[in-house]
Amino acid sequence: MLRVGVDADCLDLATVGDGTGVRLRLDLAYEGTAYAGWARQPGQRTVQGALEAALATLFHRVPPAPALVVAGRTDAGVHATGQVAHLDLTEAQWRHLRRLGASRSGSPRSPEAVVVAKLNGIAGRDRDLRVYRVTLAPEGFDARFSALWRRYEYRIADAIAVADPLQRARTVWMPDELDVDAMAAAAAELTGLADWAAYCRPRPGATTVRDLQSFTWARDPDGVLVARLQADAFCHSMVRALVGACVAVGAGTLERDDPRRLREAGARTSAFRVMPAAGLVLVEVGYPEASALAERAERTRGMRSLEDPAS
Amino acid sequence: MLRVGVDADCLDLATVGDGTGVRLRLDLAYEGTAYAGWARQPGQRTVQGALEAALATLFHRVPPAPALVVAGRTDAGVHATGQVAHLDLTEAQWRHLRRLGASRSGSPRSPEAVVVAKLNGIAGRDRDLRVYRVTLAPEGFDARFSALWRRYEYRIADAIAVADPLQRARTVWMPDELDVDAMAAAAAELTGLADWAAYCRPRPGATTVRDLQSFTWARDPDGVLVARLQADAFCHSMVRALVGACVAVGAGTLERDDPRRLREAGARTSAFRVMPAAGLVLVEVGYPEASALAERAERTRGMRSLEDPAS
Repeated sequence: MLRVGVDADCLDLATVGDGTGVRLRLDLAYEGTAYAGWARQPGQRTVQGALEAALATLFHRVPPAPALVVAGRTDAGVHATGQVAHLDLTEAQWRHLRRLGASRSGSPRSPEAVVVAKLNGIAGRDRDLRVYRVTLAPEGFDARFSALWRRYEYRIADAIAVADPLQRARTVWMPDELDVDAMAAAAAELTGLADWAAYCRPRPGATTVRDLQSFTWARDPDGVLVARLQADAFCHSMVRALVGACVAVGAGTLERDDPRRLREAGARTSAFRVMPAAGLVLVEVGYPEASALAERAERTRGMRSLEDPAS
Repeated sequence: MLRVGVDADCLDLATVGDGTGVRLRLDLAYEGTAYAGWARQPGQRTVQGALEAALATLFHRVPPAPALVVAGRTDAGVHATGQVAHLDLTEAQWRHLRRLGASRSGSPRSPEAVVVAKLNGIAGRDRDLRVYRVTLAPEGFDARFSALWRRYEYRIADAIAVADPLQRARTVWMPDELDVDAMAAAAAELTGLADWAAYCRPRPGATTVRDLQSFTWARDPDGVLVARLQADAFCHSMVRALVGACVAVGAGTLERDDPRRLREAGARTSAFRVMPAAGLVLVEVGYPEASALAERAERTRGMRSLEDPAS
């Protein structure tokens, strides 16, 4: 069992001396353009692959190399500003971090700050990946299974919006004008607990029941259409399919209640397209208060053990 | 003399039939990362070069290829969200645009819309350059000499700001924490009409007297330090030198009134560094009411004829 939930200042060599190690929470962001998604894949540049390679370098004298568990397994090209992951360290690895931090001439660093600096120095060299914070995870924390909800945003610059070249990496440009009121109405019809089989790329044995807690559309000050979606979790390609259905409504090829009807029909359809990855950003992952973390993880693990909590 | 200031709906073939042509105003944006600046240079990818090549393609059967005059001659790597340029067309070229627009099956386009579509279709293919609007310029309009002011922004993510990978192209990341109050105080001391020789890369025969109308520093919601500067015009490298002087104040290596003192000393100095191009964006160019355009252009042309109104 892991020792977690201990304040950093109290966690010295003595208190981790029982051979159990610690769990660290990572908060990070990335521009997904040049990544083949989150998940490690042989021969591909992935976010998990880049971070785990940096961890392997950091701990090459103190094996094993830690593996990451993530809240949102984003697809190729999808971005994140609020991604969360965790990793487990042995007692020897934690001691290694303390030694590295203490031996820094001039300004000693905490073990957590050592991890931030090393990950950003190695995996963050190209600046399209950035670790914001590393913290000791509270008791019972699991980046994937403790999460209460994921929030995503999707950005579309249509004919009447400002298509800003500086925001092109995270914005899809469309040549026509979209009806934002119709899209907002279609989105509002979709919220709630339902079976999203019509909106998901199927995975064997996995449920497609999800609670879509909110789904809104609005134009930002530049006129860019921004969708905001929150659910307990999204199944694979679900956000981009939901956005695509609303775009079809905004373009007039579907009626406002068609996206809901298509969901109720329960079968995948060609009535709308799954939108490109580039417009999608994972912006936040919500967790319960520390006291409820373990219970939440236990419950989620039981419900969705065969699948990814990804979009 | 050019015929300008005519409403688009009234300007038909008859009214431009006196052989004088029209002047068009272009409003555009670009991410400067992959450009060697605005100004055309042999063998280099530049914004002016890309746009003029597209214009040459559009008018290859109706020479001469139009040349562009710009409000802010940005350096290599500098971005723009509010750049303004103009170009002059012959009567034959204007008629060519009308023909192209009218011959579009289904949805005819105005001549101005033809230029927008062609420039974005050719020069805008990589999406790091975007023409927002093309309009008939009012009488007396000159993109460079009619401008009353230029406004720039500079973004720095220091140690306590969110260094967002999605905004990295237009944001400089710095490892230390900067004192924004000290930087704002130093900036406020600098505003006004003065000789900026200490802050400019010299050009033979050119004055370095400029009116720095405003210069502020504030943190945005992500904690990113944003400088906003407005002047009648900036001489070469002036914005990045002014930002560098304030960064030295924010880092504690200069006192708050040192940037003003260095300006008064009048000589270039190594007390601060000229900041990288990537943090800099030309956000807006201001012009007088239509009735004052020609007078403004005449006056500016006389004062600054030997130099660039660039940063």
